[in-house]
Amino acid sequence: MSALSSTRGRLVGVGVGPGDPELLTLKAVRALQETDVVAYFAKLGNGSVARRIAAPHLRAGTVELPLGYPVTTEIHRHDDAYRHAIAGFYDAAAEEVAAHIEAGRHVAVLSEGDPLFYGSYMHLHVRLALRYRAEVIPGVTGMSGCWSQAGTPIAQGDDVLSVLPGTLDEDVLIRRLMQADAAVIMKVGRNLPKIRRALAVAGRLPRALYVERGTMEGSHAIPLAERGEEPAPYFAIVLVPGWEGRA
Amino acid sequence: MSALSSTRGRLVGVGVGPGDPELLTLKAVRALQETDVVAYFAKLGNGSVARRIAAPHLRAGTVELPLGYPVTTEIHRHDDAYRHAIAGFYDAAAEEVAAHIEAGRHVAVLSEGDPLFYGSYMHLHVRLALRYRAEVIPGVTGMSGCWSQAGTPIAQGDDVLSVLPGTLDEDVLIRRLMQADAAVIMKVGRNLPKIRRALAVAGRLPRALYVERGTMEGSHAIPLAERGEEPAPYFAIVLVPGWEGRA
Repeated sequence: MSALSSTRGRLVGVGVGPGDPELLTLKAVRALQETDVVAYFAKLGNGSVARRIAAPHLRAGTVELPLGYPVTTEIHRHDDAYRHAIAGFYDAAAEEVAAHIEAGRHVAVLSEGDPLFYGSYMHLHVRLALRYRAEVIPGVTGMSGCWSQAGTPIAQGDDVLSVLPGTLDEDVLIRRLMQADAAVIMKVGRNLPKIRRALAVAGRLPRALYVERGTMEGSHAIPLAERGEEPAPYFAIVLVPGWEGRA
Repeated sequence: MSALSSTRGRLVGVGVGPGDPELLTLKAVRALQETDVVAYFAKLGNGSVARRIAAPHLRAGTVELPLGYPVTTEIHRHDDAYRHAIAGFYDAAAEEVAAHIEAGRHVAVLSEGDPLFYGSYMHLHVRLALRYRAEVIPGVTGMSGCWSQAGTPIAQGDDVLSVLPGTLDEDVLIRRLMQADAAVIMKVGRNLPKIRRALAVAGRLPRALYVERGTMEGSHAIPLAERGEEPAPYFAIVLVPGWEGRA
């Protein structure tokens, strides 16, 4: 159904996968080809990886709606001021998207990885999905991209897999890692020294694998214990495979 | 590169996604179009969902290699006899695949969801990836398909997501659920009554969502508390979204 034949627009959350443009799904490609507006979150001064993946599939004349995060590096993310600024930003972004939907347009909101898995899209979804027709197209997650690139089976059988944001406090990370069979640590970046210490205390450092820019240009994977102390980029992940001693 | 021009074959683990044929990636489609042999695991008497998804993309003349699980319902899965039978089956399956690779053919092994995430493919991968060229193409997982279908944001910010096989003992499930922010319970099937009891004890039943056949024909999602006691099919999942009280 094209937007021209509908009396009302709709919202589509589109997962564009972990980075390799070929890891788009057929359904995501179709949604991109059909949309009137393409929206994406972006940090000031950074290009959007999601937009770069989507661009070849957009029709000429597709309206672009970049949603630029407010600058918040001066405020700690647990502060009320931060929460308030971020909530206000998502409110305003949702209204920008809503205006297009009200005008009868289809709006595709891009998400790296999967839209409802630690993605910014969900902040729009909870604000708009009850007001308008909404659809979510799942995507290949960054973690799947990383363990596939590394050829590392992550979990099997009765393994419990824990997905841990690297932003957690060190003692929480240690406790979670001691309980985990398999673990994935996301949001690595400048949290890497803390993550490394937590893995060492939990006895999981020897099996930990560091994967940078999985499925993207210039990606690589090495045992974390062999990696230096230099800061990690945003697109880095640490994998602790489960499935010890089994085949 | 086609198999005809290569002197040696290779192994490709292909994730075909959660069920909707449009949730194949462009990369998976290309691998299916290029492969000489398509292999897939199947239970006796059951068709392979993965094969049905892949079929439209295979060339005429592609060799089919079904790998039929041994009948093991009479043996408990923690028994040594079971482990021995299953290990022997994977050994034999790996040799069947290896014979094609040795003959210079490309072999695509299909996985529902993602190959290295609780998939049978990994049993072949650990046996063959050091002997031959091997590549893994990640796929959209069943859990991503389910939470997208249900429109349920699963995890955000500092949430820890725990992926729990429903085969775990009840007391383990309870403990894990009490520690989890967000949780996904897989392998539901006949474990549903146990899973429901564990969720109730852990105080997580009110937020638990039951999703059947996510992204497939006839899929539906309802609060688990409202679902009857009839057995669940294999393609069912329980979601406990994190992100409580936030937007």
